[in-house]
Formats: sequence, structure tokens, C-alpha cells
Amino acid sequence: MLPLSTLADVHAAAARISAYAHRTPVLTCRSMNDLLGAEVVWKCENFQKVGAFKFRGACNAVFSLTDAEAQRGVATHSSGNHAAAVALAARLRGIPAHIVMPDNAPAVKKAAVAGYGGTMVYCAPTLAAREETTAQVVQATGATFIHPYNDARVIAGQGTAALELLTEVADLDVIMVPVGGGGLLSGTALVTAALAPATQVIAAEPKAADDAYRSLQAGTILPALDPHTIADGLRTSLGPLTFAIIQRHVQQIVTVSEAAIIAGMRHIWERMKIVVEPSAAVPVGALLEKRLDLTGKRIGVILSGGNVDLAHLPW
Amino acid sequence: MLPLSTLADVHAAAARISAYAHRTPVLTCRSMNDLLGAEVVWKCENFQKVGAFKFRGACNAVFSLTDAEAQRGVATHSSGNHAAAVALAARLRGIPAHIVMPDNAPAVKKAAVAGYGGTMVYCAPTLAAREETTAQVVQATGATFIHPYNDARVIAGQGTAALELLTEVADLDVIMVPVGGGGLLSGTALVTAALAPATQVIAAEPKAADDAYRSLQAGTILPALDPHTIADGLRTSLGPLTFAIIQRHVQQIVTVSEAAIIAGMRHIWERMKIVVEPSAAVPVGALLEKRLDLTGKRIGVILSGGNVDLAHLPW
Repeated sequence: MLPLSTLADVHAAAARISAYAHRTPVLTCRSMNDLLGAEVVWKCENFQKVGAFKFRGACNAVFSLTDAEAQRGVATHSSGNHAAAVALAARLRGIPAHIVMPDNAPAVKKAAVAGYGGTMVYCAPTLAAREETTAQVVQATGATFIHPYNDARVIAGQGTAALELLTEVADLDVIMVPVGGGGLLSGTALVTAALAPATQVIAAEPKAADDAYRSLQAGTILPALDPHTIADGLRTSLGPLTFAIIQRHVQQIVTVSEAAIIAGMRHIWERMKIVVEPSAAVPVGALLEKRLDLTGKRIGVILSGGNVDLAHLPW
Repeated sequence: MLPLSTLADVHAAAARISAYAHRTPVLTCRSMNDLLGAEVVWKCENFQKVGAFKFRGACNAVFSLTDAEAQRGVATHSSGNHAAAVALAARLRGIPAHIVMPDNAPAVKKAAVAGYGGTMVYCAPTLAAREETTAQVVQATGATFIHPYNDARVIAGQGTAALELLTEVADLDVIMVPVGGGGLLSGTALVTAALAPATQVIAAEPKAADDAYRSLQAGTILPALDPHTIADGLRTSLGPLTFAIIQRHVQQIVTVSEAAIIAGMRHIWERMKIVVEPSAAVPVGALLEKRLDLTGKRIGVILSGGNVDLAHLPW
């Protein structure tokens, strides 16, 4: 029996992170409703600290530690939003964060993590090297490892976004989120199942990285094999914890073409005047491609993040 | 004696447009504060209808008309945000809008105005042709001409942005806005002088289109002569109405380099995750260039708009 998170864990996470995380705004946009043929409310995690929902989970994990644990610091391997989120959460608690990153990671990502006060530990650009280096760091420092998604504290933290959304907006027919490792999806699904069981949870996944879709069909985790998608936050595979929650509480996963992801991203920028990253636009891509008949429905979309290299936009 | 707008006119405008215009959010951003060395609150007119503050003035003008006047429609010449704003306001009132635009205007701008239901009237791309064509339209239809800024109804409408900001945020040391024709600046200045006389009003203007700066120095309107600035909303010159208010109530105009405008725009996109147009970034450019010592001050910046061609970004 896996230690699944519960609604109580999400409430506890919400209380724990409330002094640090933004309660992000919920926006509506007439022009997007017209385009999508549905009534959509947008939960703007691109405005979250570090520019992504990832701060919620990292913050909950870091502030869940006992003082004795915390003193020895935290560690993770990531070159993306989770790394920045762990670094900032650790700085806020006043403890060290060891971030293991491939030595060929883009300079801009190294700088972001360093800017939040993380201690960089470089390794060769392979999964084996990453895991081995992280294990060495943990052994040497006694730091607590914080997995990007397969961690009950992280899942509960990510669930606080949906908790805020469902508290603020009633009568949603559907909640849509992107799925990569499944932290946001599983947190969203367990909150929704508990608080709004009539609301469907539908995940959107790049067709080019459809491991969650295939895993749900197969009933077992099928990892992503070197997927190539512009949605760089969604290249990871599910973990046992996230998969168990997704199997139980997620109604559907739809896959989305790269073209629709890019089109969705551009529509959000042009019509809503906000900056979102490709991963955040995957649910919009699904709506644009009409993979589901959601005409006239009330849909909550969690916009997962806004970190994008403005010098390399995909249009 | 010119018919200057008053605070009462702005209050009346606020009531008149409240059913149609957004009360835009006021954002803060720790990372921008750190960058600029000041405590800045951002009034987000990029989220306004049609993506710019211009909707406030156009909406107030359109809904100020008597039913008899309104029936004959409205007319303006513009290819920018004012044209879209007049078209949408007219559609909301259910009356015709005649928009005179040079026949070589970009297709995207023609499409935007047409999308809001405006009737396009094309003319040769000269000021003389534009004014003559507009006069012909007014004569033929009986439409009311709505000037983009030199109009007391428009000025009062633009002033509602500052009215909302000052109602929501206390103790600002400074309000900064960009200046082109001066509609936003004069509306802001007259509201601030009446409601928060201790708050300085400082305008920011592209150095490459510094007619307002020179006009204020000279004490007379000196027009912009074919200015070339990326801030396409600020290429116009002051009018007698806006100039009179600016002379009376604006403390200072600072000029800003093109490089600083672009840098400011990029910082806003990257750190605040919102899309603003170059004109909106001019006050940020002024802060970046430290043209004034505002260290530690509380500054309200009105972000004037967010309409930008994503296919042609300046970095």
C-alpha cells in the first residue's frame, strides 16, 4: 500500500506554504472563450514564485522537514523549474540546497538556480550520472532528497493550486492540467475527487511524449524513451506514487500535437497578454484540436508555468 | 479658456464605462523591485479590453453621446489601439464606427479593427489625406469625430485608470506613465493633482520622439517630425487640451533611449510574465537608465498596453 496523499495533506500543505507562495489569480478572457467554444477560467501558476506551480510542492517539502533534517539541507536533480523551486524554498528556510545538474545544461538555467541561492553540483549528462551524483551528495551532506514529483509532500503541495481554484470557482465541469511526471495532475486529481467529485479531471500530454497516456491504457508505467517535445517540462515519466493516484482519479488523458501546443501558446500570449511556457499550453492545444467535445462546458485550466527563453520562441 | 476636464468628469467617466471596461489588476513583483531599486505597483492596462487603456477614453466618448448623436455613428482616424477601441465601444453601443486608415497599414491592424466591427475607410498614407477623408466621412454620415487624445471625453476616460490605481494603492511617491499625444498623461495628471497632490506625476517619452519634453521646456507645442521609435503608440504630438493639463500638473518628462525601452520590455515579460507593448515599457526604461533618483520610492506605473506583433519582437 503506497502512502497516498489525502485532502488533509493538501490542506496542511496550503497552511504550510501560505506565507511563501502566491495565491495566484484566476483570470477569464472573453476572446479565448470565443475561440475555444467553452467558458474557461485560468489559474495562473505562471505568476507563482519562480514562475511555475513547482514552487508549491518544493516549498511544502522543505517546510515539512524537522529542524534537525532541515539543518542538513535538501538535494534534488533537475535543470528545470523544480530545481529553482527547491533552491528558493531552501533559501526561505535558511538551509542549503544542493542542485545536481548536467554540466551541459543551458547557462540560463544554471544562472536561474544560482540566482535563488542553490549550490550547483555538476555531473555528466546521463540519468545514471545524475542519480549517482545525487546519492553521493545526500550521503556526504545528510541532505534530504526531494524528488520532482514522486513524493507525497510534493504531490500535496501541487494540489494546493486546484484547492485554491475550486475554492474560488464553483461548478466546473472539467479541470484540465498538463501531465509530465504527474505531480500537478495527481495533486489536482485527489483534491478534485474529494471536493468536487462531479468535476472531471482531464490531463493533456504531448503526443510526442505520450507515456502517461500509454501507461494509463496499459495499467502499468511505461516510461518515456527520449521524447522530443517543445513542452520541456513534460518529458519525464510517471512515478509509482503519481501513477497510483492518476489511475484512481483521472478520467482521461488526451494527447496533443506539437503544432497545437505552439498555437495554443501563441493564442494565450496574444489574447490574454500573459507569458506561458509550452508545457502550460498543452491543455489549450487539446481544446484547439477538439480532442474532446467540451463545447459550452465550464473548464478550469491550470496554467503551469511561464519560464520561456524569449530569444527562442517557436513561431 | 479651454474646456479642461475635471475630477468630476473622471468620476462620471468611471461610472459610464464601468459596465464595459475592465477594472484592471494592480500587480507587484519582487524581482522587478530588486532590479529597479524601488517599490513599484503596476496598473495593468495591457489586460484592458482591446489590450490598451485606449478603450477607457473611447468608451467614455461613445457613451457620452446623446441617442440622436449616437445613431449617426462615430468616426476616427488611427491605425492603432484607438481605432480598435472606438470600434469596440461603438459595437457595444450598437452604432456604426467609421475608421479611417492608410491603405498601407499592416494587415494585422486592419483585421483587428474589422474584428471589432469597425467599418474601414482607406485613404492615402498622408496626414492630409487622413484628415480630408475623415472630414468627408463625418460630412456624409453625420458621425461624431472622436480624436485619439485631444478630446475632453477621451482625457476623462483615460483618467479612470489612475483613479482606480489611487483608490486601491495609498501613499505613492510618484506615478509614471508614457506620453505620446498626452491623453493618458493628462488624465492621470488631473486625477492625481486632485486626489493625491503629494504624488508626483512623471512622464516618460522616447528620446527619439521627444516632442512633449521639448514642448514643456519651450512652453509651446512643438510637434514631432516623423519620429522613429519602437514605441509605436508614442509617435504622435501633444494637442492643445492635453498640453494645457500637462503644463499645469506634470512635474517632469524624462526621455528614454530605444535600448532602454527594449530592455525594459524584456524585463517585464521575463520577470512579470505579462505581455506589454514597447510604449508601455518606456517608464521602465527611464527607471533602468536612472534618469531620476527614485531609489526606495513607491512608484505607480501604468502599463499602457499589450498589443505587439509576436512574430517581430525587438530582441
